[in-house]
Amino acid sequence: MKKNELEIVKEIRNRFFFPESLGIGIGDDSALIKLKNPALLTTDLMIEGVHFDFAYTSFYHLGFKIVSINVSDIYATGGDFKGFLFSAGLPETISDEELKDLFDGIDKALSYYDGYLIGGDLSRSEKVVLSGVALGECDKPVLRKGAEPGDTIFITSPTGLSSAGLSLLKSFSEEEKSLIKKIKDFDNFNELNDKFGSSINELIERHLMPKARNPHKFRKIAKAMMDISDGLLIDLYRLCEESDVGAEIYLDKLPVISSILKTAEYLNTDPMNFVLSGGEDYELLVISAEDKAIEFGLIPIGKIVETKGIYLLDPLKGKISAKPEGWQHF
Amino acid sequence: MKKNELEIVKEIRNRFFFPESLGIGIGDDSALIKLKNPALLTTDLMIEGVHFDFAYTSFYHLGFKIVSINVSDIYATGGDFKGFLFSAGLPETISDEELKDLFDGIDKALSYYDGYLIGGDLSRSEKVVLSGVALGECDKPVLRKGAEPGDTIFITSPTGLSSAGLSLLKSFSEEEKSLIKKIKDFDNFNELNDKFGSSINELIERHLMPKARNPHKFRKIAKAMMDISDGLLIDLYRLCEESDVGAEIYLDKLPVISSILKTAEYLNTDPMNFVLSGGEDYELLVISAEDKAIEFGLIPIGKIVETKGIYLLDPLKGKISAKPEGWQHF
Repeated sequence: MKKNELEIVKEIRNRFFFPESLGIGIGDDSALIKLKNPALLTTDLMIEGVHFDFAYTSFYHLGFKIVSINVSDIYATGGDFKGFLFSAGLPETISDEELKDLFDGIDKALSYYDGYLIGGDLSRSEKVVLSGVALGECDKPVLRKGAEPGDTIFITSPTGLSSAGLSLLKSFSEEEKSLIKKIKDFDNFNELNDKFGSSINELIERHLMPKARNPHKFRKIAKAMMDISDGLLIDLYRLCEESDVGAEIYLDKLPVISSILKTAEYLNTDPMNFVLSGGEDYELLVISAEDKAIEFGLIPIGKIVETKGIYLLDPLKGKISAKPEGWQHF
Repeated sequence: MKKNELEIVKEIRNRFFFPESLGIGIGDDSALIKLKNPALLTTDLMIEGVHFDFAYTSFYHLGFKIVSINVSDIYATGGDFKGFLFSAGLPETISDEELKDLFDGIDKALSYYDGYLIGGDLSRSEKVVLSGVALGECDKPVLRKGAEPGDTIFITSPTGLSSAGLSLLKSFSEEEKSLIKKIKDFDNFNELNDKFGSSINELIERHLMPKARNPHKFRKIAKAMMDISDGLLIDLYRLCEESDVGAEIYLDKLPVISSILKTAEYLNTDPMNFVLSGGEDYELLVISAEDKAIEFGLIPIGKIVETKGIYLLDPLKGKISAKPEGWQHF
């Protein structure tokens, strides 16, 4: 990198606008934001070699994703996203173009979520380390606590797309990986269609550039909520622990999309591993007592029950106690 | 480490109390805090090999310092500190005791600053990476902008202690370093007194466990403020850039404490390098038009002037244009 820290910060300040009516953005010791409601705060790390691999991940993807995974936690609490703080540890070898790509991805995501960059920190680091902080606000938070026996368990989308995408990415040749790394617009990517068809795009996009699910239409009917970041089973288990209840999932109602079936076949693995235990979908688990949740496109997959634990109801095999499995960081 | 992520998070939740009247702390997708005034937010990274060296730094020191350097930015904006989010990338080799030490240090600092741990993220990482986020609140922020010609430049303490401490630490033998690493209470450390005297304690403490300076007594008379994290000259230069002014520092008024003089002599270097360009003091630069600033213990060191640039006024050599030097991260 040719630029020094002062120059980089100056460029970032010029690029990322923050309206004075909202407060004070980048450039002072701390940012100031006026909120109408209580503040919501969350932070998430992404570390090279643990959370991503530069063989197929670009700085643009990373910029977009570090925003999404943090916004997802604000949305999962039923909040509105307002501002983002971004810190990065970057190797001295990073090029000016890569640095631009990183902030292009952040910019793209902030436009998508309608929020502002308000601060951050830059440092040298051997490996790339990204830390995001999302600030939101919320009148009535929806917590993990609040689910009661009889409530319906909904998801905002089929699950497993991100982990199926990740498994595909890992299986790719170096040449295929470097094609993926160049994608900025997944809708118009078709260079691997001959081999895989276009349906893998949604899997790879969900892994590299997930979009957090905004609950503003249905948060009023949600009794409990959280995002599916570590896997459906383990996240449902956590929600149930907080609510002091159990859950039954109807396996025949759990959506398994065709691109996951194809991927599982191609990789010779069980598609249910992706659907039940795959992480990083950044969709929402929504617990509601109201049937009209379906009107908002929410997908019912089971019921909250009194007996603690997570149970899978298989039309053929009956009731199976599920071990919550998913991404644990240690 | 023997514990898994769920167990660690459970322990942290049990340990770090958050009063329900203030909101919702650790354990949900995001934390919720009720504030009376606009929110202040800041974030700072600490990365192994860049910001610290485990030869003489313990996890306890790191826990304390990651809180201090973030709180310092809230104080530097004239704010009150409320909550802290803490993320860490940690190697799998970290012991349960080291992990406890890290959170002991955070706990100690949060008690000192009277704030709460409200969230965070844990991940694996090859090198230790710490990311802190401080949330504060503020009715009337004091910015870097606001200094005007004729104002007096104050500092809240002599500078250069941290960088002199760091230089000393680097010069120590491995045995001396490992003695330092064990210190939790610098007031009662005297194992190196025979060689160095007790005066080095304040330098080493300032480097390993700095205490952010609370401005609540004098923030009303401050027109501009920032913390001295990268060095007196470079930070004053930044404040002046934001205020569109210049500054004159009277070298004969700049305090140089005896432990810095002794250290400079021992290391055969110029003490003014520490005082003018040494980073990480986490004291405050305060610009005020009011003479009574002295009543609050603030030390006048110069004047804001119209001509841009930083000038050193030496009683013998006259006026010297100073190149702002200090810690730049790239």
